[in-house]
Amino acid sequence: MIPAEIIKLKRNGFELSEKVIQEFIKGYVEDSIADYQMSALLMAIYFQGMTKKETFALTSAMLHTGLVIDLSDISGMKIDKHSTGGVGDKTSIVIGPIVAAAGVKVPMISGRGLGHTGGTLDKLESIPGFNTQLSLSEFKKLVNEHGVCFIGQTKEICPADKKMYSLRDVTGTVECIPLICASIMSKKLAEGIDGLVLDVKVGQGAFMKNKNEAQKLAQGLIEIAKLGGKSVTALLTDMNQPLGYAVGNALEVKECLEVLDNKGPDDLRELCLELSAHMILLGKKAKNISQAKKIAEELLVSGRAKKVFVDIVKAQGGRFTLPTADKTQTLNSLKNGVVKKLDAGKVGLASLTLGAGRKRSEDTIDMAAGIILHKKIGDKVKKGEPLATLHYSNKLPTTSLNESLNYLKDAYEFSLQKSSPPRLIIKVMTTQGSKK
Amino acid sequence: MIPAEIIKLKRNGFELSEKVIQEFIKGYVEDSIADYQMSALLMAIYFQGMTKKETFALTSAMLHTGLVIDLSDISGMKIDKHSTGGVGDKTSIVIGPIVAAAGVKVPMISGRGLGHTGGTLDKLESIPGFNTQLSLSEFKKLVNEHGVCFIGQTKEICPADKKMYSLRDVTGTVECIPLICASIMSKKLAEGIDGLVLDVKVGQGAFMKNKNEAQKLAQGLIEIAKLGGKSVTALLTDMNQPLGYAVGNALEVKECLEVLDNKGPDDLRELCLELSAHMILLGKKAKNISQAKKIAEELLVSGRAKKVFVDIVKAQGGRFTLPTADKTQTLNSLKNGVVKKLDAGKVGLASLTLGAGRKRSEDTIDMAAGIILHKKIGDKVKKGEPLATLHYSNKLPTTSLNESLNYLKDAYEFSLQKSSPPRLIIKVMTTQGSKK
Repeated sequence: MIPAEIIKLKRNGFELSEKVIQEFIKGYVEDSIADYQMSALLMAIYFQGMTKKETFALTSAMLHTGLVIDLSDISGMKIDKHSTGGVGDKTSIVIGPIVAAAGVKVPMISGRGLGHTGGTLDKLESIPGFNTQLSLSEFKKLVNEHGVCFIGQTKEICPADKKMYSLRDVTGTVECIPLICASIMSKKLAEGIDGLVLDVKVGQGAFMKNKNEAQKLAQGLIEIAKLGGKSVTALLTDMNQPLGYAVGNALEVKECLEVLDNKGPDDLRELCLELSAHMILLGKKAKNISQAKKIAEELLVSGRAKKVFVDIVKAQGGRFTLPTADKTQTLNSLKNGVVKKLDAGKVGLASLTLGAGRKRSEDTIDMAAGIILHKKIGDKVKKGEPLATLHYSNKLPTTSLNESLNYLKDAYEFSLQKSSPPRLIIKVMTTQGSKK
Repeated sequence: MIPAEIIKLKRNGFELSEKVIQEFIKGYVEDSIADYQMSALLMAIYFQGMTKKETFALTSAMLHTGLVIDLSDISGMKIDKHSTGGVGDKTSIVIGPIVAAAGVKVPMISGRGLGHTGGTLDKLESIPGFNTQLSLSEFKKLVNEHGVCFIGQTKEICPADKKMYSLRDVTGTVECIPLICASIMSKKLAEGIDGLVLDVKVGQGAFMKNKNEAQKLAQGLIEIAKLGGKSVTALLTDMNQPLGYAVGNALEVKECLEVLDNKGPDDLRELCLELSAHMILLGKKAKNISQAKKIAEELLVSGRAKKVFVDIVKAQGGRFTLPTADKTQTLNSLKNGVVKKLDAGKVGLASLTLGAGRKRSEDTIDMAAGIILHKKIGDKVKKGEPLATLHYSNKLPTTSLNESLNYLKDAYEFSLQKSSPPRLIIKVMTTQGSKK
């Protein structure tokens, strides 16, 4: 079929067949279908949506433009976690070791941060020497030995997604649930895992601003996973305020080490245990979720998870001498009151402006930069008390420092009444995949 | 504004400002905005539509990417005609001379044919020596001297339209009324005319298959013309069956000469007089439409229109030795009955297949090829009587001849009951433009 006819079919609201979708994606990756045809199709999909069947066919077509990793020579269940992205969202670093310590294999393939949200890969690379660019055989070897290994996406996995995502970014076609689902799931299905826990973030600092939208996305992801024969559990979790107190790469790794030392912020600890428990359950190392939670907690308290982390960091070349920032500055409260809001999106932008993130994918990151929050939603504050500390480099222009301070000031809202933190775990949705 | 943000605005249903539209079109012509961004915007426009204000801003932005012809040194009112395209639609060749003979200036800038519909430019070029590629100053000189001159679009006029039209063709965004309106009117407003008569074709052989859609298009065109300060009259006319009996370039010119000799097919003669009358009225050479019709008819009957045509053809280098085809073949009726349908689209395809048209814009045309119909809707036919004669070259492959015959056979439908030809002039819509 000629590309314009395929575009018109979708434009006119028809369901595209698996064959037609494959043809279009293959043509696009091979450059016989042009960017301008793909962007027109993407916009038509934005308006007409896709059925379950179409979304799975799209995911599958994208997946098969690249390598599908064969993890069959790794013994045991292979379970990964994916987060839709948040601020201070550092759970992978804690979860990987907990779940591995429980005897489930965790082959973690993570992405980099863009915009106000961070990426696990960047956080791990703030550990001096840590190598995320391993060969596939080294990766498999380390997963087998340590139960967990952290690497970055390779060029061989899902080239269609990379090409399509860049295009969506510049053609106003990012905000589309079937396209988001296909993008996430094509990469995850390429990993050769048995099951997946999805952390779908909801709130000011997340892509999905409300529960309803987040639920639709989670549902879409679950449907594809099911069709792909994977077991999957999706959690809708709060991203109105940042997770934990630390935002910024090395600062976040430090906070993860605190959690692994059985300390650290309550919300971060709680979410890590919850996500770990769902992975342990999917990995069949517990009979039910309450047993899985007990196992996760025990592995954290006993220090066994910490040991796994220390070992895998060393095995990937890392040294625990985290970089620290040249300078710090404290933002003090101008009011008495209770923190009513702490906009995660604005905290993310404040951290990005200090050099901790990327505005464009080619930007470089200051690994030591970021923000330590002292007050979060529900906390009482007195005038003059510190709200947050900014960590930054000598080289940071004063205009950027001021811009960051302004974002942070804007992020906080106060009340004279009592205020409670938002509910952290909003909903759990699960499905059992059956291998085709 | 960054292009993706402009696309998102339209995608989300907002009205784009004149400034933003200008920026996008200018950026596109200057290659700072990519094809893939334009195609995404076009698809968003397909779904969200455009307000009158936006459509005019788009037309105006496209128009100003090129030259706006200054015809102010041509005395008198300058009126052009535009048809949305049909089969056997050769009226320009008859109308130009009639209206010029009435003292109205007719600066005709025409296009080439693509697909099953023909183009005035191709038809005229079937006259040996006829030169449609005149300089602007020669064009103006001939309009001044003869009242009419026929040329083709130049690269200097509306480069945005050319670029956007090619893109729409391959991205499924042709069928969109605001985009069609902007494409037509940007070229017509660039001609520096005072008024315009639009022949909006309706039916099987036309772009608009039903009256409702055609009326929407006519309304859209009228609104832009009005905002552009041009007087405009739009006629909705039948294109269920071909206009006249001849389809194919030299065959159509021959039929035009018959009409100019006060002979020729009734429907063609009627439509030419009607369109001419509306142009004469817009050109202020008559007080009302009935007076205008009398003037038009008198100019045809007296041979004064013919004289204008003969003179301008000579002035543009043409010689009246029209090419004739090597071969002819007659399609005879297999039935007794009355012609109930004669699908103009299929007749167009039959003619195209004989070499009279282009499948792709780079194809060359056989000027002598085409079809002469002997029976049209409402005509009685006896078994064995000729329905149509095919004109074609020695070089035409037999498979093409057979394909053409099949299209023609399919085009005819018969009935045993009486059947009337469709109403030729369906509706007249008019507006008075006021110069800004």
